[in-house]
Amino acid sequence: MSFKNFKCVPKMIFGRGSFADLDKVLGEERKAEEDFVVFLVDDVHQDKPLGGRVPVKAHDLLIYVNVDDEPTTKQVDALTEQVQAFSKNQPVSVVGLGGGSTLDLAKAVSLMLTNPGGSAMYQGWDLIKNPAIHHIGIPTVSGTGAEASRTAVLCGPVRKLGLNSDYTVFDQIIMDSELIAGVPTDQWFYTGMDCYIHCVESLEGTYLNEFAKAFAEKSMDLCREVYIDDHAEKADKLMMASYMGGMSIAYSQVGACHAVSYGLGYVLGYHHGIGNCLAFDVLEEFYPEGVAEFRKMMIKHNIVLPKNICKDLPDETIAKMVAVTKSMGPLWDNVYGEGWEEKVTDEMLTKLFRRI
Amino acid sequence: MSFKNFKCVPKMIFGRGSFADLDKVLGEERKAEEDFVVFLVDDVHQDKPLGGRVPVKAHDLLIYVNVDDEPTTKQVDALTEQVQAFSKNQPVSVVGLGGGSTLDLAKAVSLMLTNPGGSAMYQGWDLIKNPAIHHIGIPTVSGTGAEASRTAVLCGPVRKLGLNSDYTVFDQIIMDSELIAGVPTDQWFYTGMDCYIHCVESLEGTYLNEFAKAFAEKSMDLCREVYIDDHAEKADKLMMASYMGGMSIAYSQVGACHAVSYGLGYVLGYHHGIGNCLAFDVLEEFYPEGVAEFRKMMIKHNIVLPKNICKDLPDETIAKMVAVTKSMGPLWDNVYGEGWEEKVTDEMLTKLFRRI
Repeated sequence: MSFKNFKCVPKMIFGRGSFADLDKVLGEERKAEEDFVVFLVDDVHQDKPLGGRVPVKAHDLLIYVNVDDEPTTKQVDALTEQVQAFSKNQPVSVVGLGGGSTLDLAKAVSLMLTNPGGSAMYQGWDLIKNPAIHHIGIPTVSGTGAEASRTAVLCGPVRKLGLNSDYTVFDQIIMDSELIAGVPTDQWFYTGMDCYIHCVESLEGTYLNEFAKAFAEKSMDLCREVYIDDHAEKADKLMMASYMGGMSIAYSQVGACHAVSYGLGYVLGYHHGIGNCLAFDVLEEFYPEGVAEFRKMMIKHNIVLPKNICKDLPDETIAKMVAVTKSMGPLWDNVYGEGWEEKVTDEMLTKLFRRI
Repeated sequence: MSFKNFKCVPKMIFGRGSFADLDKVLGEERKAEEDFVVFLVDDVHQDKPLGGRVPVKAHDLLIYVNVDDEPTTKQVDALTEQVQAFSKNQPVSVVGLGGGSTLDLAKAVSLMLTNPGGSAMYQGWDLIKNPAIHHIGIPTVSGTGAEASRTAVLCGPVRKLGLNSDYTVFDQIIMDSELIAGVPTDQWFYTGMDCYIHCVESLEGTYLNEFAKAFAEKSMDLCREVYIDDHAEKADKLMMASYMGGMSIAYSQVGACHAVSYGLGYVLGYHHGIGNCLAFDVLEEFYPEGVAEFRKMMIKHNIVLPKNICKDLPDETIAKMVAVTKSMGPLWDNVYGEGWEEKVTDEMLTKLFRRI
């Protein structure tokens, strides 16, 4: 018998306005004159106030990244090469400032700077050999749990799969709820639902233990305070919900919704947040209470999901999604436990996709 | 404006039976032939099944420690010298196996092996200069939060005060609820109440933020499941409550109960758990709801606190306790906020002590 030895983020700053401490935090990493930092910043912040507040020094490298599409292994490799072309030395830190996609890019680049051969080689579990460059995550959208997780999810040549390793985990996160103030309602909702769904999948899963349960239950309570009660401190609460949801799945596993959402996302390119919502909305047989509460939240926030996306797609497109979804073994094991292979049939999954 | 950069335990194992993984975890630290580990084990486990399960190798050092009294700087210095006499090399890890006192001893020894001059020099905040030896905490009693905290509380020549630093934090903890099965009811109750009181003090304090709040609220819910609902999974839940309570105060602060308890403990030698209960029971004006629920829990578990301990003590003994209690500035700042100095009078504290 052997238990998971869970690596988590060792240093955290929490609080409104705490982004201003980034310069001080980086100061502890900058030791020699030539030391430089790489900032990967979501390009929605370019020419916005936050862009101007990034504490870039003269010899640092600031790259605005576009995450209109989900991050890919190609994008990671190109960014890594850009950093390597910039200096023959390694940066002392890689900072990701943005939503889950940007944070995952920062994690992946910090790993690829020390692990040669291209990121597609490392999609999977514990394939990373060498420690990453020091890396810092600063969310500007909350819900994915990317700030807390040991993965960086990338679309690769063959599949969408994360770089899962202890080295992937951020060395430092800064949770400043002021930064998530300007997020458009749709994105705020979809990304927050990623967190809510993490909790449902964790709590209803066979991998659950009291560690994961305590985090998921609290995260879910916080989601309710944000999306049902419209709490005055909802930005801070959503930030904590996201972190705790991430802590929960790190010691359990996601489930049916993420499996279906990965298939949908990989084939049709839907972003993770909305992809999860589209998938979750047809999973009432898996998660009756969770889906009912989710629909209540959608109504409260006037969220209308696109309809009939898959209804008329060619059979081979559906088959491709079914194949990706079916390949997510650990997720289905978490849903059904032993013998999941017999329950996850092409027929069952095809029916689900046709309803999306 | 500057925020706390909170260092937390980076690696955690949780689960019934996970103590068996300790050998594997230590294997990653043992690199050279001569590498050795120091085990500090609460002597209640000597000649008990758990004592026999400690994965000691031929050239390791196993020391059974006595914690009938609260740990002292003298005890830490003597243990450190014992390790130094054992080998001219440093150990690759220091493992603490026991309750909060034993865990604090392990933290303190791991620090004193790399920071010369004796532990009394480092009682305070951020006085530690050098990183500690790798250290692992394995609680066999739950509630203190010592597994999660950045302090090792010691009675020194002048006062009871912790070695507070980022280096104090364990590198690894193992939370195996099987280990807390044999704890006597009184100790189980008093130590668990340390956790409950952490939550009350955190939630009612001026230092509270949403990070500390989320952890304290969940920890308190778990305490209720343990001490009121008598939940079937209460050992696992208490372990999580303790961890989360520790996480909460790490990002906020304790309050009036710990201040009074420190005075009581330093002068009369009461252990931290029962000291807190004695103090909390006279603090209904500070924490009316918390104290009411605490008394309900005492009744449920047939806990009867000693009475009239301080009633007839000489004035100078009370004055000594008052002085220690009054000196806990940050705790009173958490209780009252700015201007606390005017509110924490000798008269008020003397009245409280006379009621214990």
